[in-house]
Amino acid sequence: MNKERQFSVKRQTALQDLKLPDDLRTLDHTQCIALCESIRRILISTVLKTGGHLASNLGVVELTLALHRNFHSPQDRIIWDVGHQAYVHKILTGRVGEFQTLRQENGLSGFPKPSESPHDCFITGHSSTAVSAAFGIAEAFRIQGDPHYAVAVVGDGAMTGGLFYEGLNNAGKSRSKLIVILNDNNQAISKNVGAIAKYLSKIRSSTGYVRAKWSVERVIGKTPAIGSKLVSGLKNTKDRLRKNIVQTTLFEDLGFVYLGPVDGHDLEALDEVLSVAKSYQRPVVVHVQTIKGKGYAPAEENPGEYHGVPRTSSSGNGLSRIDLDEKNPEVSVDECYSTVFGKALTALGKRDQKLCAVTAAMKYGTGLQFFAAAHPDRFFDVGIAEQHAVTFCSALASMGMLPVFAVYSTFLQRSYDQILHDTAIADNHIVLAVDRAGIVGEDGETHQGMFDIPMLTTIPNVKIYSPASYPELEVCLSAALYQDQGIAAVRYPRGSQPVNIPLPAETVLSHQDGGGILLITFGRISANASKAIRILHENGTACSLLRLVTVFPIPETAIRIAMQYQSILFLEESEASGGIGEKMAAKLLYSGWNGSFRCRAAEGFIRQSTADRCIEQLGLSTDDIVRLVKETEQNDDRTP
Amino acid sequence: MNKERQFSVKRQTALQDLKLPDDLRTLDHTQCIALCESIRRILISTVLKTGGHLASNLGVVELTLALHRNFHSPQDRIIWDVGHQAYVHKILTGRVGEFQTLRQENGLSGFPKPSESPHDCFITGHSSTAVSAAFGIAEAFRIQGDPHYAVAVVGDGAMTGGLFYEGLNNAGKSRSKLIVILNDNNQAISKNVGAIAKYLSKIRSSTGYVRAKWSVERVIGKTPAIGSKLVSGLKNTKDRLRKNIVQTTLFEDLGFVYLGPVDGHDLEALDEVLSVAKSYQRPVVVHVQTIKGKGYAPAEENPGEYHGVPRTSSSGNGLSRIDLDEKNPEVSVDECYSTVFGKALTALGKRDQKLCAVTAAMKYGTGLQFFAAAHPDRFFDVGIAEQHAVTFCSALASMGMLPVFAVYSTFLQRSYDQILHDTAIADNHIVLAVDRAGIVGEDGETHQGMFDIPMLTTIPNVKIYSPASYPELEVCLSAALYQDQGIAAVRYPRGSQPVNIPLPAETVLSHQDGGGILLITFGRISANASKAIRILHENGTACSLLRLVTVFPIPETAIRIAMQYQSILFLEESEASGGIGEKMAAKLLYSGWNGSFRCRAAEGFIRQSTADRCIEQLGLSTDDIVRLVKETEQNDDRTP
Repeated sequence: MNKERQFSVKRQTALQDLKLPDDLRTLDHTQCIALCESIRRILISTVLKTGGHLASNLGVVELTLALHRNFHSPQDRIIWDVGHQAYVHKILTGRVGEFQTLRQENGLSGFPKPSESPHDCFITGHSSTAVSAAFGIAEAFRIQGDPHYAVAVVGDGAMTGGLFYEGLNNAGKSRSKLIVILNDNNQAISKNVGAIAKYLSKIRSSTGYVRAKWSVERVIGKTPAIGSKLVSGLKNTKDRLRKNIVQTTLFEDLGFVYLGPVDGHDLEALDEVLSVAKSYQRPVVVHVQTIKGKGYAPAEENPGEYHGVPRTSSSGNGLSRIDLDEKNPEVSVDECYSTVFGKALTALGKRDQKLCAVTAAMKYGTGLQFFAAAHPDRFFDVGIAEQHAVTFCSALASMGMLPVFAVYSTFLQRSYDQILHDTAIADNHIVLAVDRAGIVGEDGETHQGMFDIPMLTTIPNVKIYSPASYPELEVCLSAALYQDQGIAAVRYPRGSQPVNIPLPAETVLSHQDGGGILLITFGRISANASKAIRILHENGTACSLLRLVTVFPIPETAIRIAMQYQSILFLEESEASGGIGEKMAAKLLYSGWNGSFRCRAAEGFIRQSTADRCIEQLGLSTDDIVRLVKETEQNDDRTP
Repeated sequence: MNKERQFSVKRQTALQDLKLPDDLRTLDHTQCIALCESIRRILISTVLKTGGHLASNLGVVELTLALHRNFHSPQDRIIWDVGHQAYVHKILTGRVGEFQTLRQENGLSGFPKPSESPHDCFITGHSSTAVSAAFGIAEAFRIQGDPHYAVAVVGDGAMTGGLFYEGLNNAGKSRSKLIVILNDNNQAISKNVGAIAKYLSKIRSSTGYVRAKWSVERVIGKTPAIGSKLVSGLKNTKDRLRKNIVQTTLFEDLGFVYLGPVDGHDLEALDEVLSVAKSYQRPVVVHVQTIKGKGYAPAEENPGEYHGVPRTSSSGNGLSRIDLDEKNPEVSVDECYSTVFGKALTALGKRDQKLCAVTAAMKYGTGLQFFAAAHPDRFFDVGIAEQHAVTFCSALASMGMLPVFAVYSTFLQRSYDQILHDTAIADNHIVLAVDRAGIVGEDGETHQGMFDIPMLTTIPNVKIYSPASYPELEVCLSAALYQDQGIAAVRYPRGSQPVNIPLPAETVLSHQDGGGILLITFGRISANASKAIRILHENGTACSLLRLVTVFPIPETAIRIAMQYQSILFLEESEASGGIGEKMAAKLLYSGWNGSFRCRAAEGFIRQSTADRCIEQLGLSTDDIVRLVKETEQNDDRTP
């Protein structure tokens, strides 16, 4: 143990000197085991500091090493689905030196990022994309006559997404050199849901058959001209049996060779199964069983809690690090918009038997654990399946139920057609609780909630609220449920409400007339705008604030108020194109208003940093707003 | 035969007097057969006149009758996926009298429409939604303590869509009274693709096993306390066998009871299997085999051609009825935007080995049959799987290939997150050939292509072209492929280019200065605007035209030109909210312009009619534009 420790310490240092990933193929078994140990240490010490996904990465240490020993990245292409399990991959492809910059401004991304390394061949911030992507790569290889492999590593959580199935279905009939590694940790994000999870556990419990099958196929795969009569006889029996029973596994039904299950922490077994997988000239699924949190007791015992670990130092958005000793996520979560929403909905659900709550594998993240506990009959975790979640809600609504789909802004993007075609055309009444709306910070481009407003405002029959405090979230939720028809969305940011900014709880707007330039904003930026106005007033600059709570359709009152001013500054924590500022400007022009209008909003994708820093980069911090008002004042003076 | 014919004629008349669908349960077998015959006659004579989906409806005559005899609609809810196979359902639920108004203005919709009848419980213009919808309904029944059934009738084409799988996965573990009828006609829209199709044919060919299984399960289902030792023994053997081999069919893997396959034209077999299906207290899949076009020789022989039948009288959009005797769709299709696109892409593909073409089950509809024939290696029909299509394209692009996804505007809505997250963030270069952009006419709300512009303009790194003629389509396609980066979309309408309107082939814009009011428009409306200006000039009204070809990002030149005018009229065959008019207005205001700006665009969903009538309803016909210019002139005069 002591000796091993010494070795691994040496190896840990050595990681930075190895030619990665190529040198990994030169290591012997003992060295590999020691390397895995040192990787786990790096993961634990770094991620507890930087925040990020700990448990899932602890689970894939051996698998990642085996992949890089058996495939030649970046010529062979490895795609991680979802990408938050790619930390070990980053460490093993020469990024251990920067690993402590994980998820920080200008640091390593928490997800694969082609601009960061040639070993990150496809962006996978959202789940269930890897089979489609890997099949595209494999088909390009085929057309280009390139003999390399495309490997998709898919977590079992990602298997509930329809895109995963679309990819399998399309790839299954091909002759592509596509290998799908099913990383089955039986956990998904909180706890896996749906029939596919049940099905996996069924496969797992029948190792006898599949192992036998694997050996047969393996021998056949390795010796194209079958020598042994025994093997050939065994194969024929299996074939006859299979023909009789239609098919064996779901993956074979879809045209794949199925190998497994294999212990994902047994390096020799992994080496073996991967070399067999490579011997086929057609798509293969390798079923690997891993333990989420492997090697770190607290995470192994409670992987859900260590799925996403916040940063140690509070990033100013009110989220503190989850208490490491706390085992019950139902009580361990700090008060934030999500929990306020969840508790409010639970209370409403007590009075209203029609109320249903739906999540796509984000029960804790969206604060729905309270509703699930209180009203299990009307709570639905549909798995990572945002399309289905919305169509399902629309159907519940068509039956007189009152469904609320709580979802992160970025993942709602998956539901565009279901909101538009399956819900809006029929004018079914559903409520979207859009969590993580606006900047989310460290997860970067793939997770910022910058598109829900542009996306939802293209759809007829949609109303959008953007509350700026907990009490306002509650009144908006209640209005969305009981005053509105069609699709009503209540959007709120990640984290907690602003401190010391008492805002009246409105559902339409609040207006604070101080003459001068009119600031218009909504949601989280309201607090910054309020602070800015206080500073400006103290400096003797006249300035007014129009805070929208109903942001779409833009309230007529808001247009009337705006028309009383000659200079408007619109501040928007959302994309400019298709945003509320753009719509407000158009409305004002249509109404014959001809003052000066400036809009400060996001343009393009926002890179990772703390939420506060991201907001600064958008130019929407309190200081930015003060500066912007002064600039605007000067410009307006110059153009009378 | 003669006697039967007499009877059916009588029955056909009588259909209008029957209390539908309840009286269907009183018919004997002979009456049922006669009824089916008369329904087929109604279908053929009507659809050849009105246009619509003939072959798929001919295939479900017996199935629809059986469903309405075994379930009590509208208490039991039947959902058709995709909804174009619901004509027989409409006839059998009391709408035979209006059936000749199918797909016409104020007539019956070609899809289920809740506002039309309580028997149409869910809108299903897009495919693969029915399991999600039916499961939502079934869960509402459960919560409400209602004993009724939710029935989803899913065509095999819809089975490639990920949403279908998400629904199955979520429903499979439930105890819902959900029955999924798999309407397997082995055709999909053109020809089914993907592993699931192959899989279905495998099941079909193993009827021995599944029939046996069905009988066993059936007896067990009907007699909860099993009497016969034989049956129980048989079941045990099966169970042991199944446990050994992990599972049987894919549907059972996902938690459903599987029954079938059953001959979908055998009324007695259908009655039997449906009554068995109802005996379970959990989700059931009933696999029904039907023949697309059944009972009408031309359609039965060539169902692809009769999938969508255009109206007999040309509707002014240049599409004429497909020649009934023509068997080869590759030569039978009239010249239209789709074929011009398809032929141009095929020619480019000859010179460029990197060029790939992708369709989601719309090879003929999008004009890709030419490319498929010339470059089969680089042609991909992924099935109805628009999410996968885009992610797959993005992956091809990441490998240096040049993929073009040809897709109808309305179906592109399914790919929003794949365009945004899987493609735009990485700035992968793919081309979207957006067919049926703008008004499509008779298919109504669910199929109008009114959202591609609002949707795509919310996504960074997107460029959009809207050509107004065939030559312009070709230059735009070439620019999108070889001059642009990121996502380049070329959108064009259903049908053919305008007659006698020679427009210069541009890729940015064309400007025709005649003073007065500036009309700004793009795409199909350009022709109407040109005509209107000619009329206005003849009447002595000054008027100018700015025709955008690159519509997004709005070219800077367009803003500069617009700022030279004091009155602008923006004409847009697309949704107003998030549209180009709105963005142009905002840009002009930001630039300090303060003239008069009016925008005429679509607001909300556009109901079915001919394309010309729909455009009139938007106020975008030539006459409308002339009138609008005159009105604007008068208004401008009043407000100097």
